Amino acid sequence: MTSHAREGMFPISEIPNLDLKKAGFEIEKDEIYNPENTSLLDAIVKVNGCTGSFVSSQGLILTNHHCAYGAIRRASTPEHDYLADGFYALTRDKEIPAPGFRVRITRSYEDVSDRILSAIKESMSWGERSEVIKKQINIIETQAEKKHPGWRAEVSEMFSGKTYLLFMYEMLNDVRLVYAPPRSVGEFGGEIDNWMWPRHTGDFSFMRVYVAPDGSPAEYDPENVPYEPKRFARISSQGVQQEDLVFLLGYPGRTYRHRTSSFVAYEQELRMPAVAELYDWQIDLMDSLSMESRELALKHASRIKGRANTMKNYRGKLLGLERLDLVEKKRAEEKLLKAFIASDPQWQEDQDLLEKIEAIYNEKQDYFQFDFILSYLPRSSTLFSIARTLHTAAQERQKPDDERKSAYTDRRYNETIDNLVLRLKTVHLPTEKAFLKHILTQATDLPDSLRPKRLNTFIHSPHPKQQLHALVDSLLEHTELHQESKVREWSALPPTAFKSSRDAMIDFYVDLYPLYEKLEKIENAHSGALDAYHAQLLDVQMAYQDQRFIPDANGTLRLTYGHIRSYSPRDAVHYHPISTLQGIMEKTTGLEPFDTPSRLLDLIDIADYGRFEHKALNSVPVCILYDTDTTGGNSGSPVFNARGELVGLNFDRAFEATINDYAWSADYSRSIGVDVRYILWFMQSYSHAHRLLQEMEIPGGS
Amino acid sequence: MTSHAREGMFPISEIPNLDLKKAGFEIEKDEIYNPENTSLLDAIVKVNGCTGSFVSSQGLILTNHHCAYGAIRRASTPEHDYLADGFYALTRDKEIPAPGFRVRITRSYEDVSDRILSAIKESMSWGERSEVIKKQINIIETQAEKKHPGWRAEVSEMFSGKTYLLFMYEMLNDVRLVYAPPRSVGEFGGEIDNWMWPRHTGDFSFMRVYVAPDGSPAEYDPENVPYEPKRFARISSQGVQQEDLVFLLGYPGRTYRHRTSSFVAYEQELRMPAVAELYDWQIDLMDSLSMESRELALKHASRIKGRANTMKNYRGKLLGLERLDLVEKKRAEEKLLKAFIASDPQWQEDQDLLEKIEAIYNEKQDYFQFDFILSYLPRSSTLFSIARTLHTAAQERQKPDDERKSAYTDRRYNETIDNLVLRLKTVHLPTEKAFLKHILTQATDLPDSLRPKRLNTFIHSPHPKQQLHALVDSLLEHTELHQESKVREWSALPPTAFKSSRDAMIDFYVDLYPLYEKLEKIENAHSGALDAYHAQLLDVQMAYQDQRFIPDANGTLRLTYGHIRSYSPRDAVHYHPISTLQGIMEKTTGLEPFDTPSRLLDLIDIADYGRFEHKALNSVPVCILYDTDTTGGNSGSPVFNARGELVGLNFDRAFEATINDYAWSADYSRSIGVDVRYILWFMQSYSHAHRLLQEMEIPGGS
Repeated sequence: MTSHAREGMFPISEIPNLDLKKAGFEIEKDEIYNPENTSLLDAIVKVNGCTGSFVSSQGLILTNHHCAYGAIRRASTPEHDYLADGFYALTRDKEIPAPGFRVRITRSYEDVSDRILSAIKESMSWGERSEVIKKQINIIETQAEKKHPGWRAEVSEMFSGKTYLLFMYEMLNDVRLVYAPPRSVGEFGGEIDNWMWPRHTGDFSFMRVYVAPDGSPAEYDPENVPYEPKRFARISSQGVQQEDLVFLLGYPGRTYRHRTSSFVAYEQELRMPAVAELYDWQIDLMDSLSMESRELALKHASRIKGRANTMKNYRGKLLGLERLDLVEKKRAEEKLLKAFIASDPQWQEDQDLLEKIEAIYNEKQDYFQFDFILSYLPRSSTLFSIARTLHTAAQERQKPDDERKSAYTDRRYNETIDNLVLRLKTVHLPTEKAFLKHILTQATDLPDSLRPKRLNTFIHSPHPKQQLHALVDSLLEHTELHQESKVREWSALPPTAFKSSRDAMIDFYVDLYPLYEKLEKIENAHSGALDAYHAQLLDVQMAYQDQRFIPDANGTLRLTYGHIRSYSPRDAVHYHPISTLQGIMEKTTGLEPFDTPSRLLDLIDIADYGRFEHKALNSVPVCILYDTDTTGGNSGSPVFNARGELVGLNFDRAFEATINDYAWSADYSRSIGVDVRYILWFMQSYSHAHRLLQEMEIPGGS
Repeated sequence: MTSHAREGMFPISEIPNLDLKKAGFEIEKDEIYNPENTSLLDAIVKVNGCTGSFVSSQGLILTNHHCAYGAIRRASTPEHDYLADGFYALTRDKEIPAPGFRVRITRSYEDVSDRILSAIKESMSWGERSEVIKKQINIIETQAEKKHPGWRAEVSEMFSGKTYLLFMYEMLNDVRLVYAPPRSVGEFGGEIDNWMWPRHTGDFSFMRVYVAPDGSPAEYDPENVPYEPKRFARISSQGVQQEDLVFLLGYPGRTYRHRTSSFVAYEQELRMPAVAELYDWQIDLMDSLSMESRELALKHASRIKGRANTMKNYRGKLLGLERLDLVEKKRAEEKLLKAFIASDPQWQEDQDLLEKIEAIYNEKQDYFQFDFILSYLPRSSTLFSIARTLHTAAQERQKPDDERKSAYTDRRYNETIDNLVLRLKTVHLPTEKAFLKHILTQATDLPDSLRPKRLNTFIHSPHPKQQLHALVDSLLEHTELHQESKVREWSALPPTAFKSSRDAMIDFYVDLYPLYEKLEKIENAHSGALDAYHAQLLDVQMAYQDQRFIPDANGTLRLTYGHIRSYSPRDAVHYHPISTLQGIMEKTTGLEPFDTPSRLLDLIDIADYGRFEHKALNSVPVCILYDTDTTGGNSGSPVFNARGELVGLNFDRAFEATINDYAWSADYSRSIGVDVRYILWFMQSYSHAHRLLQEMEIPGGS
């Protein structure tokens, strides 16, 4: 709730208010952000869900290997396995298109809070307020995009119910793959090292943005030319030392630091444990199925990986929440805030504010099981999820094109259905059955009014379990949604067809649909009320603490700074903040994910580190650790030194730093980047990527 | 092969040659060892396979919880679970006898090399030499024990084929349990933390030795009185700081530092991987069986634990051998040694010495599979092992009592058979079957002359696997050795009964017996030759390096010293050498092995550390880490400061220090002890064990 000295993902609008000189910056503020002129910000891009940065005048972008992963995989063929072997386009015409990749650059922002909030009437219910805010945002975005064809307009809520900014993004759609290290380097350590320090992952890759010959954004075309950014980041091969100041620019996704103790308690006691329990069970089942055959292992691999990642993140968060005792800490702060409110008649109206927020969370608790089951049913059964998407699609297509959710607009409809069909590849009926049985068994405990109707027919019978299993078996035996042709067929049908469906899964979803509508209404009412209460709360807090507040991360461009810094995660354990090539040797077992290419091992052995050597460590630094304030979405963020030179590439956080989503901790908040010296040394020694090193103006290699 | 500065488990005979002042000792050498008078050595005891030390004038012994484990378990009843709750004898008459526990004190040593080696004749074969050495040792021990009734005489080989010392031990047999912390403290961290730093285990306990009222050694008798040691160790509750000098006295078991590269290669490439592979497979099988029921889990628990311990030890060793590149290092040293030999006609006879040793190991390699299968058959099947012991027993009992192996002498025979019967408790026939099938399948690949005869009947048949399985099934269906009465019956029968046995397992062992005889002959020939070669090699090495050599650990009393010292096991990871109570809080999950008693958590929370606080760490130190040279058998060794005051209790090594058996490494050799401040703080605050604290003369507690 309080904003600490070094905590902060500062929106660009805050940069003018920061004393960066005092913090140790050697470059001027307006070299970082300058609405009147070009600045470092012009070198920062969003690459799908990640961050990237221009590192040459010819549109070359540095981002993470895991951010370019889809492009590398798609570029691979049985003859050329770029995922396994890495990829280096020897000449520019060998660069490979990466369809589906979009690069955006923040061009401007504007406060639109009044335009949005003025539409709210006193007489409206919470649910109606929520609806009207969504509607206003939609109108503002549509109008802005009409004014700037080719740009994307997005309204971001900075403080809920209070501040809304309209961001304008230049969108560049011809993105190509330029360079990627082998998977054994780019993903070195895999799931085992994920969220862990010390790290030795070369999680970097290069892409390039192209535009039409006249400089305008364009879809892929062989005639396109490299985009010339207004500014690109200069690389320093000098690297960094422990305690050096560093700063990051990037697009952090989501944090919840301004929420109250009731929210954190809800997350800690209810939501995260429930998801963790479900995923634990699902991973165990998929693991044992994966033992049966390589085919089944492949089918389940990405779902196991994704869920394991979430589990590790949650375990880290739960550990952090317990260690920081965050709920108690927030409660203590809220007690002081209440005393402040009570002491001043000015806040008369806000007497019960915290109690009101708590009351909403109490209500959310009451609905939790209902919310959880409805939300995780589609995540548990791919066929159920497909039925749901098809149903939504049919409903949306009844509306005029510009009123539909964007995935169902005519422009994007085929892509949406193609993506749906792609998901069929991972469908395994026994897994579907087991997952559905598991989660529907939990649904039998719901109160009558919230329980799926189908279950009511037998939950009081003598053998409810058998009947539930029979229901699920029958659902999967009488659906055809696992066939591509059927999915495509359904995607063209009107809502009436769903009502008279003979497909058991479609039919099952149609039966559940009223419950989903009910859930949406409840959620709207809750978020409408919370938006308003949080806005009130912020006013009180600002008056109480007499300081500016930094909005929670929300996917918009932010600055954060800190230092290359060691940490002590446990008693008697101390981690140095710079790892080296020797750690790669130590971890290498020859087995994935520790299967370093033997040529790389030879190069490490030869120890020809040249100008990329860290003298004191007598090796090339591989990864760096720093206490800046980051979260998901900061993947691919450039790490700059005090002079604004690029020295690293952010890609992960330490285990204990998963707590960042709820609170920043000087002890535990540590982010992880690839040291640029490793990137350069690897490109030079392993890949002989001289074309790119020259393009980035790296002084003459050996 | 070389003896490094700080490397060294010095035998007491070496103490007079050490410059301890220069090393930083503040007490005089003759306070540690003085054959003319009492010294610190008189406070050191061997407690079964562990070390212990007297810590009061009344025979009170401090040793590890894991060393007293058997006594604590045996003392426990369903009403009083001392393993779970801990034990504190409020008064002396409440101390509980620990049958099976023996305490020995080293009283003197004498060089008997000449008496042994003079019996060897030039004309003897290697096997005969090996036999004659064993025989001479037996004679010397028997004669010495006759001279000193009640003492134990043991000849220890210091340098193989070269130096033999006769040690005389005073044996004390009335040992009682005085104090033990709860298992959740004494085994905190269990298998997970085993061989690991940072550590937070309170691995300590107290026992007391009693003697007859006239002071002579005696078996348990309620009339016995506490033994009054010549000397006891004084405890310092001041504790230690990083980089303080410490020394240990104890009984390290076995090291192999003087062996050649061919031995290490044999261990690294052949023996350890083979054992690891077998145990991995066996643990997996037992783990999956253990899921079936709690009963099966208990049956397999101790075997799983033992094998997991070995596996972790081997994994640590294999890692260390690879990191140190020990085989290559030894080969390089041997190359220099060969050049030295060639350079001097004095060593004419030793020209091919290293090649001869290598030739033996080549031969051992050829026999490895045979040796491995015969050695691990009894370790894989308890019933097979019982059959083997019964067969050996019958043969030994044909001999005069004083010529038998000691386990089969009349004095110890009942105990041996009782122990055999105890092993029946863990027999689970499906496990026996699976293990036997697994190892006998490997036996089918042996050459004809070494293969168990029974297998020959079908290995060339069309379905050898089925027939092998049928054989094992039949072995276990037609044996009665899982019945206690049958084991006792067989234990009284003469060798002739075995020849006409109708018990399938006995019969199977009798069939294999000639192979075991063959293996023993081969081993005798190898060890006879190696003994002689190693003796020659030592002469050359001493001349080459012009320095004294420290014999490998062999279970005799040793001094080692070093410093409280941090270490860096991996890139970017640094471990502080003193852990604290806060680490207990961090690790505690509430689930075994991290299930700290809630009362202890409360005490840590209250933070009333009194005079046991480490000011800089703001906590009570729990465990300490130091770079002395230890190995198995050093468990329970007292850790002394430079003034000879007891400051800790040794109980384990760090993972990387498992390499100690082959080489000492300044980087990785670290041993782990309980800090005496934790012992005292815990006894005072948790157990209120004032009687013992007073007895140890700890200044007045709170």
